[in-house]
Amino acid sequence: MMECKSALTESNGDLAEAEVVLRKRGIASASKKATRTTKQGVIGTYVHPGAQLGVMLEVNCESDFVARTDDFQALVHDLAMQIAAADPQFLRKEDVTPAALEKEREIQRARALAEGKPEKMIDKITEGRLNKFYEEVCLYEQPFIKEPTTTVADLIKTKIAKLGENISVSRFVRFKVGDQAAAETPAAGNE
Amino acid sequence: MMECKSALTESNGDLAEAEVVLRKRGIASASKKATRTTKQGVIGTYVHPGAQLGVMLEVNCESDFVARTDDFQALVHDLAMQIAAADPQFLRKEDVTPAALEKEREIQRARALAEGKPEKMIDKITEGRLNKFYEEVCLYEQPFIKEPTTTVADLIKTKIAKLGENISVSRFVRFKVGDQAAAETPAAGNE
Repeated sequence: MMECKSALTESNGDLAEAEVVLRKRGIASASKKATRTTKQGVIGTYVHPGAQLGVMLEVNCESDFVARTDDFQALVHDLAMQIAAADPQFLRKEDVTPAALEKEREIQRARALAEGKPEKMIDKITEGRLNKFYEEVCLYEQPFIKEPTTTVADLIKTKIAKLGENISVSRFVRFKVGDQAAAETPAAGNE
Repeated sequence: MMECKSALTESNGDLAEAEVVLRKRGIASASKKATRTTKQGVIGTYVHPGAQLGVMLEVNCESDFVARTDDFQALVHDLAMQIAAADPQFLRKEDVTPAALEKEREIQRARALAEGKPEKMIDKITEGRLNKFYEEVCLYEQPFIKEPTTTVADLIKTKIAKLGENISVSRFVRFKVGDQAAAETPAAGNE
């Protein structure tokens, strides 16, 4: 906190660094807001040109006032585009179904064995690769398509810091024409 | 078919009647198309002003050409509005879950008993009221909001007759802010 303040007051200091510190501070404060109830929000949609792919999602915040801000609307739009492009199957790690996790674990174990990894390393390698799996299938864990060095979770945290309210995605669906078995996210509880 | 033809050729005949006959004929021919596979189509969305309620659906037809017609697009829009306004829980009668049906049967049975209906009539009354239930919860059975004397199923049949291809709704979702338990229709097979 002290470095943060000095970075701010030092007007000739490294502004980029100050921004980083500020952002970290914001994200820390955002984490504290993560338990607050979010009952307001908006329903967002995105239909890809040609109408062969569509996304609908619910993004929640604490007040109607924040829900109507341009910042919040922009977030909803970015998240809809993210879901359209990156095709997540779940919201968060904890929403991955035991069946999906077990299936992936089997695949990664078989893969590690096929690669001839030493027997005693198999479990470790498998678990390591499951983290990669989470980054692929969980919206919150995915790299943000417009800025792949950050995750969707951090994008949301940045908005929480900026808008001063807890924000969470409660559900989404992604429809592709002809793709009947498309992922329909089970409604997950608010964070 | 004969009446239909004569109604058409008789130029001073009752045009309204001819239309009715034609429409019946169209719907009969539409029924024949109902087994054809629909793999093309579009994803449609509707978000109510204020963004507190949204609908997404997939409507299928046989060719990309028909999917792009104004008639088809208008149907998709009408169906999205229908779902937003009338809040169906299922696509068709056969999609009503046994649990939902059993629950409604219990309610209607209890209601008939409470009304003091004769014991031997209870079953008949209950089944009669289940038809009303289907009209409330199944999209295809609902009265069309823009023309309540017709059902959604007949609206679709009229379009099938007009466009000459089978058309079916394969799935829909309806999100309302804060309403986590909102109906998410299980994807049903194409007709």
